[in-house]
Parts: sequence; C-alpha cells; structure tokens
Amino acid sequence: MNIPAKVINRLALYHFILEDVREEEQYISSSKIAQLLNIDNSQVRKDFKYLDNSGKCRVGYEVKRLKQAIEVCLGFKQKKDAFIIGAGNLGSALAKYDSFKDYGLNILAMFDNDPAKVGTTINDKEVFDITKVGNLARRLNVDIAILTVPRDYAKNVAMYLAGAGIKYIWNFAPCILDVPDDVKVWNENLIGSFLQFTNNDEV
Amino acid sequence: MNIPAKVINRLALYHFILEDVREEEQYISSSKIAQLLNIDNSQVRKDFKYLDNSGKCRVGYEVKRLKQAIEVCLGFKQKKDAFIIGAGNLGSALAKYDSFKDYGLNILAMFDNDPAKVGTTINDKEVFDITKVGNLARRLNVDIAILTVPRDYAKNVAMYLAGAGIKYIWNFAPCILDVPDDVKVWNENLIGSFLQFTNNDEV
Repeated sequence: MNIPAKVINRLALYHFILEDVREEEQYISSSKIAQLLNIDNSQVRKDFKYLDNSGKCRVGYEVKRLKQAIEVCLGFKQKKDAFIIGAGNLGSALAKYDSFKDYGLNILAMFDNDPAKVGTTINDKEVFDITKVGNLARRLNVDIAILTVPRDYAKNVAMYLAGAGIKYIWNFAPCILDVPDDVKVWNENLIGSFLQFTNNDEV
Repeated sequence: MNIPAKVINRLALYHFILEDVREEEQYISSSKIAQLLNIDNSQVRKDFKYLDNSGKCRVGYEVKRLKQAIEVCLGFKQKKDAFIIGAGNLGSALAKYDSFKDYGLNILAMFDNDPAKVGTTINDKEVFDITKVGNLARRLNVDIAILTVPRDYAKNVAMYLAGAGIKYIWNFAPCILDVPDDVKVWNENLIGSFLQFTNNDEV
C-alpha cells in the first residue's frame, strides 16, 4: 500500500506523542492527539485508517496497540543499513542522532575525502576514505546513503555513489542531483521546510 | 494566498535547479525541470500558476524571471531574524549553513545552558546563556527560534521560549511540543522524512 507522504509524516508525529504518554495512561483519544498537533480530529482518525489494527475501543485508542500498529505500518522493525557520506557538521550531527535506530535506520559507517577525518570515529561509526564506499557497500550489502557533503560537491559525489552501487540517496545538500534512473533520491530540503514554516499553516 | 506546503517545497527545489543553470542558458522547459525531479511535467506547470509572472514564452521559461518569481512568491527578500537554541552538533551545523541567508533566514545568535559553550562563537554567531533569550529577543525584535536541544529537554525549553516571547519554533527534536496557542510550531521531523523516503515514491 502506498501511503501518502503527508500521512507518513503525521503517523511519525503521532508516534512521538505516544512515546511520551505516561505508563499509567492506557488510552488516548484522537482529539487529544489532534489538539497537541493543532490539526483536525477527523484528520487523525482518517490517518488511522491506514493502520492494520489501531486498537480503537469504546474509551479511546489503546496506546500500546496504536503505537505498535504505526511501527508495523511504517516498518520500524525492518532494519535499513545506511552510510553517511560527508563527516562534516551535519554528517556528524546525524551520526550522533541515536533516535534513528529506533525507527529502523542503522548507520554503519561514514565516508569523507579529508585525510584528517578518515580513520576517526564519530559515535562509534568509523570514517572511511570515500574511495572505499563501493567495496564496503558490496561487502555489507548497503544501498542507502545519507549525503551531507557541501553543495558544491554534492552532484559529483552523488554520481560517484551511483557508480559504487548505491541505490537510495537521502540528499541534505540544497541542490538537485542528476543521477541515473535506477538511483532514487529523496531531497531533505531544509530550505523548503523553512519556507513552508514561514509561508503556510499546515502541519 | 495560502500555498500548499508541498507546492512550497517543490518551488524551493525548482529554485535549486535554476541556481545551477549555466549563465549562457537563457531558457528552461518545465519538462527539463520535471525530468530532474522525476515528477510529472503537468505538476511543474501547475505549481508555476502560483507565481506572479513565471516568464513563460514561446521557447520555454526565462530562467532569470522564473527564479525571481519564485523568490518573490516565497519571500526570500523578506529577512527573518532567528535564534538557534542549543549549540550542540545539529545547532552548530545549522549555524554554519550559510545558504539559509540567501532564502531570508538570518541567524543572529545562539543559546545554550552549557557554561563551556556560552561565550564561544560559531560561524560568527555568539552563544549566549539561555536565560538571556527573553532580553535579547525583545531588544533585537526576534520571535523565531530554531530548537535543536536534545529530545529530553525540548518540551521544557520550548515552554521557556514561549515565556520569553518567542512566537515561532522550528522544532528539530523528535517530540511534540505542548506550548500555548499563540506559539506556532513547525516540526522538522527527520524521522518522518526518512520514513517517507523508505515508504513512499512521491517527491
């Protein structure tokens, strides 16, 4: 089932809320969730229709079951191994972002072309020379790369990654990558996000 | 005019493409843009309808005018001053992200509660003690905060920011902030973004 991107985004936000519910609270209402996110209750209930068993009962939604249903729906348990390409500030910040693991994203290693960085370790992730990416991708069976190199290098590095067998690039650089059709790119686009924030009222 | 969030996001991506067009190329087709982003040509043309004067002519779109139209539409020239709250890895990475300025986002200062960080400077932005945020927000007329503190502190810090007069919070912590109604929160939600990437095919 192809779930619309906005629904996936909201399901992740609902999960954040459920994570913060105190243990003694067994149930939560869709209106409580809607109120915390400042959206319509009907939107929340519509989104829940994508879940297999949302745990709805007379007194609300069972917190535990709802959480689990979101996890199954979005594949938190299906571990996805990935590399971070670029061990600069943003790359390091993402390498230290331990929450990723809870959602199925497992960062195995980092890559850079700066000799001063190669061989160092950031949050237990070793930084390798960028020329090693193809070899390690094959050996570790990794096809996801998180691209955090500066804008001016991003296109070239993306092309190199495509050659090295990477099939999915999560691109944090503010530019559009022009890679072969068998490589899928997801543009993080922080700029666009900021512009949404200042131009729009949607969640 | 309220432009849908997804359209804003795509307009920002179109702008990235236009930035990379070589100077001698005066025109660009919507189909070229669509192909680079792997989306429908009709989508691109539909999005352009939000622009005042897209520069459409017989041979395509005038690159310069199209770029300008996007800039006007999304308010790149309307400078928005902001603070970064949390001078850790992510906060520092964002402080060093010079592209923000081109899109109207001007980071004036950073705040943290770690005495080792207070008084330091990251990319020309001074780190102040968090207790100074209300005073500086008033004096500098800033009401936008970029929240990059760890998850466990985010809710409390957000409440503090609300008390200090901040009206807009761009939240990078993976949790939902519960602030008074006069404070608008935009959740960056990197987790949701990753899940979209692995669960969905949309741009």
